[in-house]
This record gives sequence, C-alpha cells and structure tokens, in this order.
Amino acid sequence: MTDEGSWLRDKAAVIGFGHTAYGRRGQFAENGTMPLVVEAVMRACEDAGISPAEIDGYSSYSNDASDAGTLAQTFGAESLRFTAMGWGGGGGSMGGAYLYAAMAVATGQANIVAVVRGITQPPMARFGGMGRGDAPKYPEARTPAQTFAMQATRHMHRFGTTIDHFGEISVSTRDYATRNPDARFFGTPITMEDHHNSRLIADPIRLLDCCLENDGGCCVLITSAERARDLKQPPVLISGVAMGAPRRWGLGAFGGYNMSDDHYCSAGQSTIARDLYRHAGMGPDDVDVAMIYDHFTPLVLMGIEDFGFAPLGEGGPFVADGNLRPGGRLPTNTHGGNLSEAYLHGMTHVFEAVRQCRGTAVNQQPDVDTALVVCGSSPAPSGAMLFRKA
Amino acid sequence: MTDEGSWLRDKAAVIGFGHTAYGRRGQFAENGTMPLVVEAVMRACEDAGISPAEIDGYSSYSNDASDAGTLAQTFGAESLRFTAMGWGGGGGSMGGAYLYAAMAVATGQANIVAVVRGITQPPMARFGGMGRGDAPKYPEARTPAQTFAMQATRHMHRFGTTIDHFGEISVSTRDYATRNPDARFFGTPITMEDHHNSRLIADPIRLLDCCLENDGGCCVLITSAERARDLKQPPVLISGVAMGAPRRWGLGAFGGYNMSDDHYCSAGQSTIARDLYRHAGMGPDDVDVAMIYDHFTPLVLMGIEDFGFAPLGEGGPFVADGNLRPGGRLPTNTHGGNLSEAYLHGMTHVFEAVRQCRGTAVNQQPDVDTALVVCGSSPAPSGAMLFRKA
Repeated sequence: MTDEGSWLRDKAAVIGFGHTAYGRRGQFAENGTMPLVVEAVMRACEDAGISPAEIDGYSSYSNDASDAGTLAQTFGAESLRFTAMGWGGGGGSMGGAYLYAAMAVATGQANIVAVVRGITQPPMARFGGMGRGDAPKYPEARTPAQTFAMQATRHMHRFGTTIDHFGEISVSTRDYATRNPDARFFGTPITMEDHHNSRLIADPIRLLDCCLENDGGCCVLITSAERARDLKQPPVLISGVAMGAPRRWGLGAFGGYNMSDDHYCSAGQSTIARDLYRHAGMGPDDVDVAMIYDHFTPLVLMGIEDFGFAPLGEGGPFVADGNLRPGGRLPTNTHGGNLSEAYLHGMTHVFEAVRQCRGTAVNQQPDVDTALVVCGSSPAPSGAMLFRKA
Repeated sequence: MTDEGSWLRDKAAVIGFGHTAYGRRGQFAENGTMPLVVEAVMRACEDAGISPAEIDGYSSYSNDASDAGTLAQTFGAESLRFTAMGWGGGGGSMGGAYLYAAMAVATGQANIVAVVRGITQPPMARFGGMGRGDAPKYPEARTPAQTFAMQATRHMHRFGTTIDHFGEISVSTRDYATRNPDARFFGTPITMEDHHNSRLIADPIRLLDCCLENDGGCCVLITSAERARDLKQPPVLISGVAMGAPRRWGLGAFGGYNMSDDHYCSAGQSTIARDLYRHAGMGPDDVDVAMIYDHFTPLVLMGIEDFGFAPLGEGGPFVADGNLRPGGRLPTNTHGGNLSEAYLHGMTHVFEAVRQCRGTAVNQQPDVDTALVVCGSSPAPSGAMLFRKA
C-alpha cells in the first residue's frame, strides 16, 4: 500500500494484442461490434500464445457494446472473474480500462484480462455531432471540433502558436502512416500546403487536423509481470497508469465552464502527468517515444506541454523543430495515429507503444525502452500509461 | 501479488455512508439523479467526518447517469484521480464498483473513492419490462420475473422447494422492515397468508416475492485501511470482493441458454463464493449476518446455497427453520431488503452490512464481526463482498 500509487509499478504486463482490419466508417456495421471484438481477441491470443479460454477478465470503455459475460461464455472460460468499464465516452476513458486490468491481474483478482474495444461508427451517429442523434443538451452545445477550436485559438492568441505548428503534426503523422500497410493512408503523403488548403472545419481546425472515423475491433491482453515472463512474446511492462482530471478542468457537455486560463490552453492532463510520472518513478526524460491521442492536432501540442516535453506555450516551437519526426526528441504517433492510421479510440496507440517496446514497429525507433501513451483529452476522465521493455 | 486474490484482504475500509430519503418510484424523477447523488455524498461525508473535496475517485455501476467529472468539480477536489463503472446493468455489477474502489485506494491510485448510485425509476421505464422501452431483442425475451420464475419452478421440481419457503423469505424480511423507520414498509407486517394471497406475477412468483422500485441516491466512502484508522467512525474492513460468473451460467438477454442443470437451479454465484472466501480467508462459518440481493425471493434461497449455508437443494428447509430470523443461523436482510425497505440496486444492503459491523443497526444482531453482501443474480457479472469489524 502506498500513497504514491507506485505499488502497481511494473506489476502488470502486455502479453499480446490483436485487431481486425481497420475498416472505413460503417464498413463493418451490419453485424455490430461483437464479431469484431471476437476476432480481435482471437488474434491477440495468437500473438500471446494463449487460449482465449484462459481469459478470465474483460475491461473496456466508452460504453462499449460488447458483453463480457457472452465473451467469456463464447471462449469457454472456466469462470469470468473480472469486468470493468471506463466511465465516460470517447478516448479519454481508455486509461481507466488499462488501469482496471493492471490492478486486477496485479492483485490476483484475475489471471488474464482482455482490454477490448469494438467500434462501428454509423449506429453511433456521432461524426460532427453530439452523439447518438440526441438533441444537444444545451442550446450552446458545440461539436468536439468547435470546442477544441476555441482552445486552439486561445493557445494561438496567448503564445503565438501558428497554423504551421498544427500542420507539422498533421504532416509528420501522415509521413509515418505512409510506411504502415495497416494505415488508411498507407503510401499517401501530404505536404504543409495540402494541410493549409484542406477544408476549414472549425477555425483554426482544418480537415487535415481531424482524426479519421473507423470501424474495427481491438484487443490487448494483460497479465501479471510474473506470469508474462514465460509466454511467447517478450513482455511489455506497465510501469504506470494514471487517470482523472485537474480542478477547474471542465468540458461539461463539451462546453468549457469555470476553467482556469492555463487549463483552457491545455489538454487537461497536468495532474495525470504528475501522477503518472510519480507512479512509474520516471520523468519526461525517460520517455523515448510517445503516442498522443490525436483527435485534433492542437491537442497533441497541448499534450506535449502537459506531459512536460515543452513548457506551457512552447509546444509549437518544439513541434516545428522536427521533434516528432524520426530521430527527433520525441518521435510521436509513429503508426500514423488517429489522423492517418485509424481512429479506434486510442487502442492503436497502445498497439504501437507495445511494438516500439518489442522492437517490431514499421517505423521502429532506435533503443526504445519506454513508450508513453496519452489518452484523448476529454471532459473527464482522461488518462495515460507508461510502458517499458522488461 | 498473489494468485489467490488475497492481496486485497483488509486493505480497504468503509469510512462512511449516506443516502437520501427512499422515495416512491418516480418521486424524485423531475431533477434527475445528480442532486440525489450530491445529497448522498454530502451525508456520507458527514458520517465519515471528511470534506467532499477530499474525494478523488468515483465508482458506480449499471450505467449510472451521474457524471464523475462534474461531481469532482462540484465538490472542489484538487484533482479527480479515479473513476470506474461496473459493466452491465441491474444490481449484479455492484460488486465491481466496490472492487474497483477497494483496489484504487489499496494501490494508492486514489485516496478516497465514493461508490455512488442514483436512481429515478420512470425514465428507465423498466418495471415489468426489458428496459428503456426498447422492443425486446428476441421474440422469446422475458421480463426478469418470468426468467427467474422458470428457475424457481425448476428448483421446486428438482428439490421439493415450496411456496412456503419463498413466503418465509418474504415474511421474515418484512418483519425486519417493520422496525426500520427508513423502510417503505415500516410498521406494516405481513403474514404467510398475505404472501399466498398476493397477486401472481409469474408463477410461482407472487407480488410479495418481488422487490420494490424506488428513487434515491446512495453513497459509500472507501479509503485505505491505514487511513481509515484515524477517522470519525470505526472502520469496517473489506475482507474480500469477488465478481463474475461461472462457465455455463448464461441469462443472455434474460433468456437462459446452454446452462448446466445445477446452474439453472442456482443464482450463478458458485465461483464468486469460491473466490470470495479464498480472497478473505474465510468460509460460510465465519459469516454472522448476510444481506442477499432480493429482487425475487427464490434468488435469496439460491444465494444461500451458492454461498454454502445450505447444500444445493436444501435452501428451502434452511429457510423454513427460521434461520433468517433474529437469533437464527444467518440473520438475513435485517434492514428489510429490496422487498420491504427500498430497492436501490443493492446499495442499502451495503449500508446495513456496515451498520451491523458498527453495531448500530435497528435490528442489530449480537456479536457481529463479519457481514456478507451478495449482489443481484444477473446475466453477468454478479459479485459479493465480505465486510468485517476492524
């Protein structure tokens, strides 16, 4: 037991992951998400060298429509012993799903927990909207792009951040995707000019600042570090997980209220970063690569600041210096991210963190020991994880 | 770290609880659940002698409509550090909410976690139906009463269980409620004849075999056992929490499929009981009082069997011998339960377990060290907790 949350450090490990093809928006909608999750679980088990019947826990987030009881029955588990759901929607609550899984296997409540997420977009009717076709709760309710556009504008106003800074995130991420055969934009580079010429969605956010929307199923398998030692793949340890939100971070119903000025220019992840580094006994200097949830490019820039890679307001110059590129200080979203690989609520960011730690990424960076995953900036909670090579 | 799940044993504690008045179905619907949860949290903090701003985690279940981020902002927490939601509906997933909270405080991820649940019934449109006014997923879909009636019938057929056995659960539970001023049926006893004469809902289940439906807000505060020592109330330790479902327990869409014969006569809690006792290092003999989720009386009887107080098939005679009554082997639902106090998805069962361990219950039983709470029998997961006096 510890006040610092460091008890969990390196006690759980990723032993495998799997996913379906990354479909276009709506491509897999006909049969719902269950078949996608089943396929992802089976591929993850193949990767890990275990039987799906060994999975005795399931963890997910964002109101995933899969049913844990049915999954356990489907795969013939002796008993289901753990289930948990992240509270809240979008990609922010993903950190919770990994935290619950890590705690469950580390405390012995379950042996192997599958973190799963299945998405088919059209039934959610969310693109450009407020979700599931509901009328907005408040007349002033905004779409995610509109909300985050206001934060981006404030960051530009206060710190001199430019369109080119956002553009560099878009272009560098696409560059990585061009070499990733799984990516929706494999082999399709863009230039800064393409970024500037892309359609304005909510000033200053352009089309090429926005994530994709995709269908697919994803699974990451987690067990105790002890058990992970004897399995097929080199284990990737979970050195820390943190989640939550700071005081006066509020995007209630996607409308900011009562926010401090600094938070309004942030991804709302300052206390998560503090807790995460303390849990893991690490700091920004220990991070070799980062996968930062890129629903909109300005949030990557703000995440870079929240997690201490650049001081508040200096994310723009940090990005402009090429630090997200191969050989840069912080190669970021080396799979192509939500912008250019696929948007599956952050699960593909975890896949890439695991690949970088295993040394098997398409855009493998040299000497990767530690990979940071930052979940989506969202009303609350968000989260983050530090993974490291065992 | 341990294979047995015993790491968590006695590492977390209940330091306070609170609730609104237990309203009639729909009584508090106008303003939604948030004000109910806020009131419950404030009462729990008063009980525990802490400020609501100290709460840095929220845990709930059954798609609770409260928003953890807004609650943390409302109460002025320095930061929100933990949120989690039980996966699945009804009272089964309550065990998860307590497990997440216990793990979070024991591992130091959060300091104080509030387990909350707010219910206003009419918007859920669930009474006697399949939920939220949706068309049934399958033509053969049944209401909960109809599903559980089939299990009750099977239990009667196979073991000679009688209507009087179910009636005794109804009457003994009501007897406790008559002395509980918070109970909906305070001062209103019933007889076995009243039970038999009550309206048939789904043979053999009568009206007086069914739980109430209520509006209200509930909160239980959990922190580490260490921190709990210095607070206002004597701490009540969480000796174990287990959740899940056994293989071939399936009430998918409330329609049993592929179930083993024994499971069909059970509450589906055999592996939960096994895990719970192992986690806590206890057995049925260590349990002084039990709060068993009583959505329908036959499920109490089956829970008694699943948790080892009577062998399979002998729950009826165990109940008929007066063992649920004051002075019996297993005083059960001493607050009046879902049947006669209020139906708030099991939270009131936890309140009563805490009261019995503190020695402050209206129907206080002598020498209570350990109280068992069994969550609702449901498709998956269900759960259970063992609480004990520190």
